[in-house]
Amino acid sequence: MQLVNGFSKLSRAKKLAWLKEQANLSVGTMKILEDHLHRDAATQAVYGDLSENSVSNFYLPLGLAPNFLINGKLMILPMVTEESSVVAAASSAAKFWALHGGFHSSVTGNTRVGQVHFTWSGTPAELQRIFETNRERLLQSVRPLTRRMEQRGGGIRSMEIRPADRGLPGYYQLFVTFNTADAMGANFINSVLERLALEFTQIMEFSGTGGEFEVVMSILSNYTPESIVQCYVEGETRIFEKVGSGLSARQFADKFRKAVDIAIHDPYRAVTHNKGIFNGIDAVTIATGNDFRAVEACGHAYASRNGKYESLSRVELSEDSFRFTLEVPLAVGTVGGLTGTHPMAAASLEILGNPSSGELMEVIAAAGLANHFNALRSLVTSGIQKGHMKMHLGNMLRQLGASKEESEMVSLYFADHTLSYAEVAMYLDSIRHQNQQQ
Amino acid sequence: MQLVNGFSKLSRAKKLAWLKEQANLSVGTMKILEDHLHRDAATQAVYGDLSENSVSNFYLPLGLAPNFLINGKLMILPMVTEESSVVAAASSAAKFWALHGGFHSSVTGNTRVGQVHFTWSGTPAELQRIFETNRERLLQSVRPLTRRMEQRGGGIRSMEIRPADRGLPGYYQLFVTFNTADAMGANFINSVLERLALEFTQIMEFSGTGGEFEVVMSILSNYTPESIVQCYVEGETRIFEKVGSGLSARQFADKFRKAVDIAIHDPYRAVTHNKGIFNGIDAVTIATGNDFRAVEACGHAYASRNGKYESLSRVELSEDSFRFTLEVPLAVGTVGGLTGTHPMAAASLEILGNPSSGELMEVIAAAGLANHFNALRSLVTSGIQKGHMKMHLGNMLRQLGASKEESEMVSLYFADHTLSYAEVAMYLDSIRHQNQQQ
Repeated sequence: MQLVNGFSKLSRAKKLAWLKEQANLSVGTMKILEDHLHRDAATQAVYGDLSENSVSNFYLPLGLAPNFLINGKLMILPMVTEESSVVAAASSAAKFWALHGGFHSSVTGNTRVGQVHFTWSGTPAELQRIFETNRERLLQSVRPLTRRMEQRGGGIRSMEIRPADRGLPGYYQLFVTFNTADAMGANFINSVLERLALEFTQIMEFSGTGGEFEVVMSILSNYTPESIVQCYVEGETRIFEKVGSGLSARQFADKFRKAVDIAIHDPYRAVTHNKGIFNGIDAVTIATGNDFRAVEACGHAYASRNGKYESLSRVELSEDSFRFTLEVPLAVGTVGGLTGTHPMAAASLEILGNPSSGELMEVIAAAGLANHFNALRSLVTSGIQKGHMKMHLGNMLRQLGASKEESEMVSLYFADHTLSYAEVAMYLDSIRHQNQQQ
Repeated sequence: MQLVNGFSKLSRAKKLAWLKEQANLSVGTMKILEDHLHRDAATQAVYGDLSENSVSNFYLPLGLAPNFLINGKLMILPMVTEESSVVAAASSAAKFWALHGGFHSSVTGNTRVGQVHFTWSGTPAELQRIFETNRERLLQSVRPLTRRMEQRGGGIRSMEIRPADRGLPGYYQLFVTFNTADAMGANFINSVLERLALEFTQIMEFSGTGGEFEVVMSILSNYTPESIVQCYVEGETRIFEKVGSGLSARQFADKFRKAVDIAIHDPYRAVTHNKGIFNGIDAVTIATGNDFRAVEACGHAYASRNGKYESLSRVELSEDSFRFTLEVPLAVGTVGGLTGTHPMAAASLEILGNPSSGELMEVIAAAGLANHFNALRSLVTSGIQKGHMKMHLGNMLRQLGASKEESEMVSLYFADHTLSYAEVAMYLDSIRHQNQQQ
């Protein structure tokens, strides 16, 4: 393989020709890259323009999870995920809770954060004095950028100097909080911060103090512990009467709480526990054109805020009532970014009734809690593999090239046998071997 | 909207008809759901079967990042991302480092973890004795499941009882470690754990101790701090001579290190800092059909392992040499799961030369470090918005319905003006207003 110059300037056809030659691709793979283009050239151009050097589209199934009762309103959730059990799990939990009051979801804050990181060789008092004197000038300097956001009810909410960290002498932050209305607001925040940094540099350079001031970088923080949504489901414990696996309603509720408590104590468990929450969160985040890396980074950092990585959910269990709560920071938008340009993201928002960003936060948290509830319900009753492997059986059979008849025989057999890829392969082999002998 | 029963059993057409009616969807949205199906019915069936209630496909662009020199081998990386700057950033960093030795990436461990969580009312000593006596019986009970994995070099590596947490009396774990060869191994591990849990329950019930034993749940842990990949780039600081923005090579290296050190100290910065790493990591993880929620959860929990959420990367800077290192846990596979069933995942693996899981870990870490390097380089020089907004300008213009001529005029203007959505909208308005007046 060779180094290539100006690759991004090549046409798609030339990029692919180069790829084929350099990576020695098969005809079949070239065909896959070709036949996943959108059939309509104008629509394909939209996808092609989303990212540099785009040569094809990666498909993720868009599934529908019906029966979500959220704050008294029934909804159908669009979910984008490659994990076979996610939509089924969400739908199952949604239906169960729709019969028991549904999801109670509320945004308890919607504050975004930006930071101008800088070093200053003078005294903290000097810095603070100059900053306060010039606060209005700084705000004025970004007025052209904030004017429109203010019309939509957003804008800068606070601005302060945060002092140097003990470990990093001379380091300070200009810590700025924002409301970005229905936008995720990353570009808005970054533009404002870079302008603030420029203005602050000029102010400090002409401050006459003789101190040295240098901006290290200016960028939003994806950590938004004040942009929180809380979502819970609750009911009398007797609603779990038919949970199965020989458990009484009370035994189930106890075991469920135990499972959550373990994830509060043990980081090894907490990671998988929270991962189950993000299975649901990410599926709706992606469907609506939002940035799931930002949501993931923020949520998991939040899970470690008490000094140890732990569960984002809690169970409260009294004599006869059960409440299951998720608290998670979310910074998502319903205008700007991909929401308006990605055709399927726009479709997903329409399926959700074109929510505000706050409403979308409430929906996403409900999706997370639904998936999480179902995963824990399976774990403490029949085990995760029973449902999971049933969903996987189809995949395995396709991979093993099973015929329709073979698939039926295998499915029948594994209705009451432990399922694994190895076992399926072995059993399929045995069927085929028998058929050859007949 | 109404509650619906048996939704998953409806045909796709009936699901969509119900969706249209209940969510009052527009004709345009129905058309979008329709025209994103794969043109080939058999291929579409593969995507449709990946997830329950699937009605369409969500497209994410598959981009190519060339010029990745990883462990001396040139590669083209397939990257799936909706974020416009990711592939461009990866390609830019890849090319820079290809001229300076490339990425040095190595797997320092590949251990997966599973846990059977249980409660036991007897003494820890009794439990330990019975476990040790029956260790071989437990291993034998899962032999039908582990036999094939052992043939591929994998299997159970260790198995131990971990004692009760002080906060949870009577709670223990059977902590099991695995090697899963080239598979991610989630189904394998879960199947083994559930079988172990069953066997252990039988052993304890007939142990004659009178203690009560109950399995709470059995499941893999997505936390794999012993499945680590380290990746670094290094060079003499003078390689940064042409970095621009008025910085000398040495000044750049100092500023770069400062940016990383800030992310070690400040969690608000660390979240965004690490998010930039996962922009690259996730793009290759998704392209190769792996589970990005597992990778994200594990990586961010690892970032908090020292009691505070912090940077996953480090800079070592001496008089004249610079080294930038990423250390991240990764548990990905190149066989099983989606890798064999998702056509585009298979294509991505072929583009990468069908790597082993260890090689894929090395590649994914390099993608993460490349994106991360480029983000920090931008941040400490021209700022993130310059490149970022240029990529976004196309999106904004499309959203504002700009004609080709209007787009050219806007692009020209913003070549030397601060770019933001608000400013673009305003400037476009002014152009249109002028044209109307003429």
